[in-house]
Amino acid sequence: MAAAGIRNIFIANQITHPLKLKRLRDLHEKTKLAVGTDHPRQIRLLNEYFSDLQSALDVLIEIDSGLQRCGLLPGPRLIDLARQIKESEYLNFKGIFTHAGQVYSAGSTEEIRRIAGQEAQIMLQSRQLLQENGIGCEIISVGSTPSAPYLVDQEGVTEIRPGNYVFYDNIQYKLGSCRTEQWAMFVLATVISQPAAQRIIIDAGSKALNLDRGAHATNLTEGYGRILNLRGEIVRLSEEHGVIQLDNAEEIIPGSAVLIVPNHACAVTNLYAKFYLLNQDGSFEIIPVDARGMSQ
Amino acid sequence: MAAAGIRNIFIANQITHPLKLKRLRDLHEKTKLAVGTDHPRQIRLLNEYFSDLQSALDVLIEIDSGLQRCGLLPGPRLIDLARQIKESEYLNFKGIFTHAGQVYSAGSTEEIRRIAGQEAQIMLQSRQLLQENGIGCEIISVGSTPSAPYLVDQEGVTEIRPGNYVFYDNIQYKLGSCRTEQWAMFVLATVISQPAAQRIIIDAGSKALNLDRGAHATNLTEGYGRILNLRGEIVRLSEEHGVIQLDNAEEIIPGSAVLIVPNHACAVTNLYAKFYLLNQDGSFEIIPVDARGMSQ
Repeated sequence: MAAAGIRNIFIANQITHPLKLKRLRDLHEKTKLAVGTDHPRQIRLLNEYFSDLQSALDVLIEIDSGLQRCGLLPGPRLIDLARQIKESEYLNFKGIFTHAGQVYSAGSTEEIRRIAGQEAQIMLQSRQLLQENGIGCEIISVGSTPSAPYLVDQEGVTEIRPGNYVFYDNIQYKLGSCRTEQWAMFVLATVISQPAAQRIIIDAGSKALNLDRGAHATNLTEGYGRILNLRGEIVRLSEEHGVIQLDNAEEIIPGSAVLIVPNHACAVTNLYAKFYLLNQDGSFEIIPVDARGMSQ
Repeated sequence: MAAAGIRNIFIANQITHPLKLKRLRDLHEKTKLAVGTDHPRQIRLLNEYFSDLQSALDVLIEIDSGLQRCGLLPGPRLIDLARQIKESEYLNFKGIFTHAGQVYSAGSTEEIRRIAGQEAQIMLQSRQLLQENGIGCEIISVGSTPSAPYLVDQEGVTEIRPGNYVFYDNIQYKLGSCRTEQWAMFVLATVISQPAAQRIIIDAGSKALNLDRGAHATNLTEGYGRILNLRGEIVRLSEEHGVIQLDNAEEIIPGSAVLIVPNHACAVTNLYAKFYLLNQDGSFEIIPVDARGMSQ
């Protein structure tokens, strides 16, 4: 990676609602942040909301590198939007960013590498188009956790955002993004019943593990998490119950612990009020999850 | 329904972990509650944890009426478990309960009615078996929201638990359990972008709407919630983004509101710190969601 150092900023994506714009303004006064956008209307809103502040707001344009969610393609709309930002008195045009989330549908390492290549290509193409129109890009920011390793040495890229690397999870493992010893988040459940020889029930359902079987609503995993200390699959989740199909008939006493690597660590984080951090010496610290439930 | 009055109790299901048993004990001293169980080990734990309290704990046995989650079938294990409860010094055997959650896979009203019939039949069969063995059932408790209406006049049933009726939701509507004017929970999202003529993006993803497309991990609905004020489908959820495919190409300005009936109100409740209650006069009250995130 062309070293850009670590920026002390956070890309707040596509902020549009007035209440959220106000919160963004408050945050901007406390820390350095950048805002991602892909629409002229957002530029007008941002310029309006930040008009009476001392420092201008850094803005990046989101590029669609294949996820087909937000973002522009290299073309006239991209040039127009960059120009609009440059002409906005209270905004700084800083560059472009993308998230190649379609990588979560990849079936092989080769496909992940191919998607990472596409991700880089469309970003460089966007940079070139802007340059040809007299607009420089200071930041070229890419990243999905699976594609990030293939972009570390990519010419032109100034930043990667390998979001999930703090915890990793079962989905990242399935995609080959991590090794088992890199898993850092576990859900500890309790067996509450064994109604049949090959069926046990745990006290962790969709409110504890989520229904994710892949990111962006893909279905990458068979079950709803990876069990580490029993041979079986979490085949079904109700809200408070998890149904485990055991590989073999064996008696499991209610009260037994079941250690699970969640499918999607990000979504699971949002379900808990606190984490228990296990230190090297075996002691625990409690870490509150302050930002969960902030949809409102 | 054979009127049993409204009991001031809550069925705490299959409590097994020591920390949860302690919380249950604390609750039992403050209010009247009943505990559901289906395993001898739980009976021993409950009897142990409640041994030094003044009042005995009411216990119900869970019957599996077809969901294949927790619960026993009418048979020797049921008789043995009821006897064990009756012989436990600090426990009262009160009766049986079930949740016919397989109704969420029903394709028609006829099928829901048939499942409700099975639910009643297996409960009455269980009661009879216990009676033949000298064990009386004071409580016969049934209920899933879709099957509940068909069990109101059912002989023998003393209690229905139509859990979802407070809010209803898109899944209940799909199952014919409610009419549109009975919906009482809505998620208000904001359009943040329109990257393509028939694709808009909202600021509500899986952290705001959940991935439920049916209860118990069924796939009843096409999308991830029902949009009330636009013609389109929520086809995909990332964590913070919802992707809406519009039926027709039309310009939707970012900042526009999108009103959504969630697929599964129960799971959505767990995602928010507070609700806004709209009064008749148009004023709002804030209701905190105290019990969310209580998996730990």
